[in-house]
Amino acid sequence: MDYVISDKVKTLKPSAIREIFKYAADPSVVSLSAGNPAPEAFPVDAIREISARILEENPIAALQYSVTEGYPPLRNAVKEYMQSKYNAVSENDDILITSGAQQVMDLFTKTCCNEGDTIICEAPSFIGSLNSFRSFNCRLCGIPLEDDGMNIEALEKALQTEKNVRFIYIIANFQNPSGVTTSLEKRKAIYELAKKYNVMILEDNPYGELRIEGENIPCIKSFDTDGIVVYAGSFSKILSPGMRIGYAIAPKPVIAKMVVCKQGEDVHTNSWAQIVASEFMTKYDFEAHLSSLREIYRKKALYCMSLLDKYLVPAGISYSRIQGGLFIWCRLPENAKISMNEFCKQAVLNKVCVVPGNAFLTDEAEQCSSFRINFSTPTDEQLEKGIKILGRLATEVL
Amino acid sequence: MDYVISDKVKTLKPSAIREIFKYAADPSVVSLSAGNPAPEAFPVDAIREISARILEENPIAALQYSVTEGYPPLRNAVKEYMQSKYNAVSENDDILITSGAQQVMDLFTKTCCNEGDTIICEAPSFIGSLNSFRSFNCRLCGIPLEDDGMNIEALEKALQTEKNVRFIYIIANFQNPSGVTTSLEKRKAIYELAKKYNVMILEDNPYGELRIEGENIPCIKSFDTDGIVVYAGSFSKILSPGMRIGYAIAPKPVIAKMVVCKQGEDVHTNSWAQIVASEFMTKYDFEAHLSSLREIYRKKALYCMSLLDKYLVPAGISYSRIQGGLFIWCRLPENAKISMNEFCKQAVLNKVCVVPGNAFLTDEAEQCSSFRINFSTPTDEQLEKGIKILGRLATEVL
Repeated sequence: MDYVISDKVKTLKPSAIREIFKYAADPSVVSLSAGNPAPEAFPVDAIREISARILEENPIAALQYSVTEGYPPLRNAVKEYMQSKYNAVSENDDILITSGAQQVMDLFTKTCCNEGDTIICEAPSFIGSLNSFRSFNCRLCGIPLEDDGMNIEALEKALQTEKNVRFIYIIANFQNPSGVTTSLEKRKAIYELAKKYNVMILEDNPYGELRIEGENIPCIKSFDTDGIVVYAGSFSKILSPGMRIGYAIAPKPVIAKMVVCKQGEDVHTNSWAQIVASEFMTKYDFEAHLSSLREIYRKKALYCMSLLDKYLVPAGISYSRIQGGLFIWCRLPENAKISMNEFCKQAVLNKVCVVPGNAFLTDEAEQCSSFRINFSTPTDEQLEKGIKILGRLATEVL
Repeated sequence: MDYVISDKVKTLKPSAIREIFKYAADPSVVSLSAGNPAPEAFPVDAIREISARILEENPIAALQYSVTEGYPPLRNAVKEYMQSKYNAVSENDDILITSGAQQVMDLFTKTCCNEGDTIICEAPSFIGSLNSFRSFNCRLCGIPLEDDGMNIEALEKALQTEKNVRFIYIIANFQNPSGVTTSLEKRKAIYELAKKYNVMILEDNPYGELRIEGENIPCIKSFDTDGIVVYAGSFSKILSPGMRIGYAIAPKPVIAKMVVCKQGEDVHTNSWAQIVASEFMTKYDFEAHLSSLREIYRKKALYCMSLLDKYLVPAGISYSRIQGGLFIWCRLPENAKISMNEFCKQAVLNKVCVVPGNAFLTDEAEQCSSFRINFSTPTDEQLEKGIKILGRLATEVL
């Protein structure tokens, strides 16, 4: 039977990363293609303890229907934390707990975009968000990323020429996949341009707490005196991704519409997970936990970069040092004899898996000479083994 | 600031039920307006035990990212159960675990409907699903419900005259809000009409296991030799709604598109909840648990109907006896001196809360002389108190 598929979904493809995961499932393949937090980063003991306590003391709260906006103590904890630490909540803002930050992309796009409207994003950008935008039949306009963030001239030009631009999507800290951190100057410039051209900003910050060096740069939401920024926060990298908890901080009228959409989408986010997150933030030493995460990822990132210096750089593959996050973006030399896609294919045949960079472009058919490496999921041994193979391959084929 | 709101979301309103919940939050008000499972229906001990075990034995599986399709053992358990007990899974079908059955409505509508497409539903019908359909700018066409299901002539006429009908939405067992169970004859007629007019069926069955009398009637999905039925199942009424687990059983090409949409929506459903559900289905006496639930709801339903017979029927309010589910639909007499809406408002002023029937219509502005009573959430004392007040009010004002 030929099923009727909506226009918006017809052209959606499973992400290229998922195809790669099929190879990565082979245990003899070293996967540098995932984006999972390191298993040692989960506060397992605390979660076990909290879970046992809530199922003992107040099981019905964890198991019964709850309100769409989110578990009130968690909304308060997030509000207080994001306000006092990052100045990211104004009195005109409200907080909505979502089923992972991914749902913020979905709900906000649904709320403000008609089919055919344009979303400006970094090129490259996070494939999960791009696919969410695509699923509402939005046009994507990618702005080239430089070492300190989007090219501002290209951004202004897009704002001048693109029709029905609804928002600018940005991951300002340790971007996925590029690892780029947008400078304070550019964050301010982007905010001013959004204001000037009357579009909103969707600021996605899943990795913000995972800074391994340098000083925190204020989030764009902290400049938001005009009520034009929607901030997407996540517990996936700092507590557990399997729990699927994220949140939106946004102007009240925007949150109100997102709540109505969430009601029709999944009613509310898993109650148990919301209570666990709330208790973890308020009854445990949350800051100490974040410090310990930074220590885990600092070690892993530095080790990964030392391996890149040792095995890939001499073979002509360059990369930009990162200040945090989980990903490093590697570039093939300009005079490479084979394409990046071919290089990634050869890598798989040699039992190491990385993600080809074009998967992160607004148009996957575009040329791209970079690939993404993840260092949080593999063990140190796997990292060394994988990068060594890539280095040998590069020496042979580039 | 004036925010740009998409056409599809602009006219969406928070459900009327939510407004009523504001009154229901007043502890002096008896709420007969909810749809929560009875707290005593949760298998708290088992959930506590399973949760402790999985967080002890394999915490990473419960906390790490997992696949969009759902936890494989849960998909298998659902498949086996629904196949062997209800013949509801064909070899052309696949199973997707969702964040509550509500997400099946969302994902399937997104997958097959363009804006302006038509969805045929029962009138009245479940407001959460109607709002989900509305959020994709779909046109709703309501077919009057009779005591044994939709009026088949009206359904065929709609299929002949409505444009771009994508699917028929039906809750065949103990419908929310009407309590109506569609007869086997009508289920077959609806399936044949869908086939004849080349539209699909979305069969939503959240209450199917809560039959309190009579024999189970085969689900429409069990006739589905043509691959035209999407079945939405739920753990909300048989395990816990706060866990947010539901599932879709649908032809493989449809599930494949729903999976891509789910990726962009929330990546996957909470892992802990999926593992708990899977263990509960396979390592505990699931059938005995379902029996005990039926016993709980049988008692509550029979008690509720005895109160209606005692207090409301003599005052001119009629109702249809139910075979299961959580809701009873009450009708004001034809010659009532006040409108149903006014009656519900008076009820709140007298400290009892029911849901006005027009909240469940495709057009809320339409007249309706019925209201919905829920008997699963209130205690026996609250039920008696509430229905007594309604009876006194009816005697005074009707």
